[in-house]
Amino acid sequence: MSSIAEELAKKQKEISVSEFFERNRQILGFDSQVKSLIMGVKEAVDNSLDACEEAMILPDVGVQIERVDKDEYKVTVEDNGPGIMKKAIPNVFGRLLYGSRFHAVRQSRGQQGIGISATVMFGQITTGKATRVRSKVAQEETAWELEIIINTKKNMPEVLKQDPVIWDGKEHGTKIEFYMNGRYLQGKQSVMEYLRQTAIVNPHARFTFIDPEGRRIVFERAHEQLPPATKEIKPHPDGLELGTLMNMAKETKLKTLTKFFQNDFSRISDRLAKEICDKAMISTEKNPGSLSLEESKRLITAIGQVKIMAPQNDCLSPIGEGLIRKGLKNVLVEQRPEFYAHPVTRDPKVNAGNPFLVEVGIVYGGDLPKDQPVQILRFANRVPLLYQQGACAITKSIESTDWRRYGLEQRGGNGIPFGPAIILVHVASTKIPFTSEAKEAIANIPDIQAEIELALKICGRSLKTHLNKKETKSRTRAKFDIVQIILPLIAQKSAKIVNKPVPALSGTITKIMNVVWIDDAVVYEKGKHKVRVTLYNYTPKGQKINIHMVVPKDSFDYTGLQFFPAEVKDDGKITWELPTIPSTHKVDINFSLKGLDKEAYDDNEIYFSGIDPVMVIGADLLPGDWDVKRLEVTETAPAAVEEEEEEVDYDEQKEALNDD
Amino acid sequence: MSSIAEELAKKQKEISVSEFFERNRQILGFDSQVKSLIMGVKEAVDNSLDACEEAMILPDVGVQIERVDKDEYKVTVEDNGPGIMKKAIPNVFGRLLYGSRFHAVRQSRGQQGIGISATVMFGQITTGKATRVRSKVAQEETAWELEIIINTKKNMPEVLKQDPVIWDGKEHGTKIEFYMNGRYLQGKQSVMEYLRQTAIVNPHARFTFIDPEGRRIVFERAHEQLPPATKEIKPHPDGLELGTLMNMAKETKLKTLTKFFQNDFSRISDRLAKEICDKAMISTEKNPGSLSLEESKRLITAIGQVKIMAPQNDCLSPIGEGLIRKGLKNVLVEQRPEFYAHPVTRDPKVNAGNPFLVEVGIVYGGDLPKDQPVQILRFANRVPLLYQQGACAITKSIESTDWRRYGLEQRGGNGIPFGPAIILVHVASTKIPFTSEAKEAIANIPDIQAEIELALKICGRSLKTHLNKKETKSRTRAKFDIVQIILPLIAQKSAKIVNKPVPALSGTITKIMNVVWIDDAVVYEKGKHKVRVTLYNYTPKGQKINIHMVVPKDSFDYTGLQFFPAEVKDDGKITWELPTIPSTHKVDINFSLKGLDKEAYDDNEIYFSGIDPVMVIGADLLPGDWDVKRLEVTETAPAAVEEEEEEVDYDEQKEALNDD
Repeated sequence: MSSIAEELAKKQKEISVSEFFERNRQILGFDSQVKSLIMGVKEAVDNSLDACEEAMILPDVGVQIERVDKDEYKVTVEDNGPGIMKKAIPNVFGRLLYGSRFHAVRQSRGQQGIGISATVMFGQITTGKATRVRSKVAQEETAWELEIIINTKKNMPEVLKQDPVIWDGKEHGTKIEFYMNGRYLQGKQSVMEYLRQTAIVNPHARFTFIDPEGRRIVFERAHEQLPPATKEIKPHPDGLELGTLMNMAKETKLKTLTKFFQNDFSRISDRLAKEICDKAMISTEKNPGSLSLEESKRLITAIGQVKIMAPQNDCLSPIGEGLIRKGLKNVLVEQRPEFYAHPVTRDPKVNAGNPFLVEVGIVYGGDLPKDQPVQILRFANRVPLLYQQGACAITKSIESTDWRRYGLEQRGGNGIPFGPAIILVHVASTKIPFTSEAKEAIANIPDIQAEIELALKICGRSLKTHLNKKETKSRTRAKFDIVQIILPLIAQKSAKIVNKPVPALSGTITKIMNVVWIDDAVVYEKGKHKVRVTLYNYTPKGQKINIHMVVPKDSFDYTGLQFFPAEVKDDGKITWELPTIPSTHKVDINFSLKGLDKEAYDDNEIYFSGIDPVMVIGADLLPGDWDVKRLEVTETAPAAVEEEEEEVDYDEQKEALNDD
Repeated sequence: MSSIAEELAKKQKEISVSEFFERNRQILGFDSQVKSLIMGVKEAVDNSLDACEEAMILPDVGVQIERVDKDEYKVTVEDNGPGIMKKAIPNVFGRLLYGSRFHAVRQSRGQQGIGISATVMFGQITTGKATRVRSKVAQEETAWELEIIINTKKNMPEVLKQDPVIWDGKEHGTKIEFYMNGRYLQGKQSVMEYLRQTAIVNPHARFTFIDPEGRRIVFERAHEQLPPATKEIKPHPDGLELGTLMNMAKETKLKTLTKFFQNDFSRISDRLAKEICDKAMISTEKNPGSLSLEESKRLITAIGQVKIMAPQNDCLSPIGEGLIRKGLKNVLVEQRPEFYAHPVTRDPKVNAGNPFLVEVGIVYGGDLPKDQPVQILRFANRVPLLYQQGACAITKSIESTDWRRYGLEQRGGNGIPFGPAIILVHVASTKIPFTSEAKEAIANIPDIQAEIELALKICGRSLKTHLNKKETKSRTRAKFDIVQIILPLIAQKSAKIVNKPVPALSGTITKIMNVVWIDDAVVYEKGKHKVRVTLYNYTPKGQKINIHMVVPKDSFDYTGLQFFPAEVKDDGKITWELPTIPSTHKVDINFSLKGLDKEAYDDNEIYFSGIDPVMVIGADLLPGDWDVKRLEVTETAPAAVEEEEEEVDYDEQKEALNDD
């Protein structure tokens, strides 16, 4: 027995992190030839985008893949970023768990300090070849070129060669060239698709891709402006863990608890720090380094009992509602979708001290395939996630949403819905909880999933409004045509034949229709979106109705209004309380939206209230939760407008009339 | 610009591996309160089982969970393993990426040197409390008790306390006590379920569990024998990576290529080493340390061109067909399943130098729920996988198998099938390619998925045989009863009435039936399984038929046979070529199986050949691939026996006859 324990003890040894990943490549996403190539490109491009944005440079990234041998490819990624100091290059590219962004509470693509070094390592393992890095910073005359390999036993870089080089016409930037065993494919999981999706969520970046056949594909910028720079913040105390607090208290240089709380955390004021200490019954002057376990626990409890402001938003970089739409339009030209739902960008929430926010966009119709599950585009911090869809919180959120409420087909009300739609979800966070270092799927954190579901429902509602409008209108379009065109024609003809005055038609019309018909349009003219909403009262009585719309924030133009809204909210919700519309009369609401890109608005989202819902065609009943945060709760969605009247083939009648 | 590059360079720093996981707990599986508790128990129990098996001790593991506070639990796991040397304890429990099993090519539960230290770390982070480890090795008089925390900034253990203690009556073993924030739940993903499933695939282990309510649950051993110890082997050259070869060549102490190949790899003989060198056109005497990149590449190519024996099996520890059945029966008593399919243990294959094998078991019917997706039990190296089902190669294999062929309901022939069934899949390997350090899902490696699919099909065939037998028999049971009971009764009665001799019925019987009816039974008596297969020839002609069966390896008893088989294969496949059975006659095949546990065999898998399949009821047509490896290819499965005759209510007639 003794020998076993001793033998085991002798075998115990440290495992270097590169050795660990060398033997567990699937954890880093290098588990197949196809995937390895995509991973390599992705890690290099992510780094380029991060560097450009940190330096406030509009990214211009070139990617080239060349086939060197049967299974061997050469990958080159070049950017116009700020460049990397020569002394920093070996560790950045040749050492795992080494980086600048790990400790920062701020949204960035790279966070782990693993990706690009892992790429260098797998290139080297599979081809035996070193990675060449060339980089130039603006204040130096020359660029430097280094050849790097990783010593996996030690997890340390080895520089095989380093030379100053002249980089023609390049002011600053970085170029990485590595060789890797892989397989280049087209399709849903490919380098092209990765670049295409990256272009959607990074409309400010330009990508040039040269594929192994030498074809050059350019994804132009959809937008010439950088997203606002993300700011680094201190950890937010929400969800602070006991162990983290104890570590921070041990390491702080500050000598009193109040100063420690004020300086080392986000959103703790002097007053709040005192309140926390009081609640925990610990002196505000206590040295954080001397806190006992018991005292730390009391502090954690106290933090949970005080009200702390939400974290600053500027550590996050949402794409924004306008640019989600623009990005999608930019790459979906060919599919000509019929409808882009109003995208949703939620306010930040906090999970375990890390601010995060969720954005959702839905595209519907056109040439998107009808009989397949909807396409899901998953993004984390503006990076597309191509693999492990089944393991991702985004997929789980989509599966557990009842899409039948929003007009998509879904067996049993769960699972991935079917239909001609694309659902885009972007999760941005100062720390994305990935399920593994390959960063392919977001872990199933309940707070994050709840927030995604909410955003999906809000966006789903916009889709449903569109589909309802389309459906009820198509079902009653024939009626509308009759009263607008055919009845007047009949009346005129009959009157002419019998040589009498044209009869009043209003009674007949209201009998046939008996609805308030809402029609709307939007056109872009001279830098403004002009919106018209027309209400026809085809009922026998006067009708009073309120109209509610959602438009992009701060875009509503108050000039030249006939009907002034009763309310215009900061988040873009507008309400009109219209005067009574007499029977057979109509009313037009005209207004403009200013300061928007042409693509930013092209469909009106219209709700009504104050009238029996069965009497309205062309808009949805205002949800009960309008006054909460824009349509958040949709569980209490009203029943769809029922329209069960007999179908008459008016088209036939109309044709017959036009025959003579 | 300069400032940006410099600023970034200043921020670059090393990230300690514990710090990395402290901030990415979801990667280790500690992403929810419920899961954390399960993970903690799992890591400790896995370690106990590994240690016991390495020391050839039948494992006896005690687990206790006590509630300390609202969210705080104390977990104790105690084993009867060999114990851990005092000097080894701090690093084993207090340092990530440190362990004894990482470099060994041998099946074990722990491989990464992360799990138990991660548990210590999360206990400490969430409760501020140290982990207490007590361990005794047989040759020491006293045990040692240490209190350990991890310095996450350095990834090093800190020992807060260490004392020799007397451990009453304990000869050797280890006990770990840690505190952790968590939530204790019952259900499909729970500590109980983890232990229950662990008991299924470790029938040699005994588990005692005391839950937070103080209830004591014991999972007794189903089997008193340890699995054969797994042996450590050298890396197998199959799938050897260039980088790995170059590293190994650089580090070997051997001075010639032939010696290097022979000694540092599995399955390379002197002759084979020479062949490889010749093909690569490199001298066998060359010093491995001096290989160039080009030469290494040539060697890799040469290795791919020579024929290398499959790896030794003894580095793997399959559960075995008999024990899969036994383990399942042991825990499924309450569900009383109607059928346990013949489990499948495949021969080892190699993936990237690591031998692996797949085992599958299927349970059907009884009180298992009918209208739900089948339950999937996933195991890797005898450890149940409770989370990330959607991300796992096992699930993907089940989803891409067409289960309609095997009698389960499945929409469109893919996805998880529905029905009252449990599908168990065990993947054993010297290196399981998990998708993350949490070890919750197996990555989608094509070779592994293909092997799982094959095993599923073979086991599915056994299920289908059972369901076919059941269905066709139930459909023709009434006919069988008529010819066996009712027709003779009618004949007798009529003969008696008219006072004439009883008429010959064979013509009538064969007209009604026109099949060869196969009936079978198995009983366990005096340590043997007695099998009877009866063939009734209810056709108008003599019939010649071959019967084929599958029985556990080496169990067929040659004594007392009336019909000697034409063939008995090593893998348990038996064939009888029976003499012609005259019309209306029957034939019995009787034989025994010896040396099996009672539970190891309870249903006969019978196939036939040499006769038109539409004439046989009670067995399946022999698949065309019988001579390959037991029914491997099932894509060419024959159409099910058609039986479309009119239904007659024989029961009613029978009752009427018995009335008088």
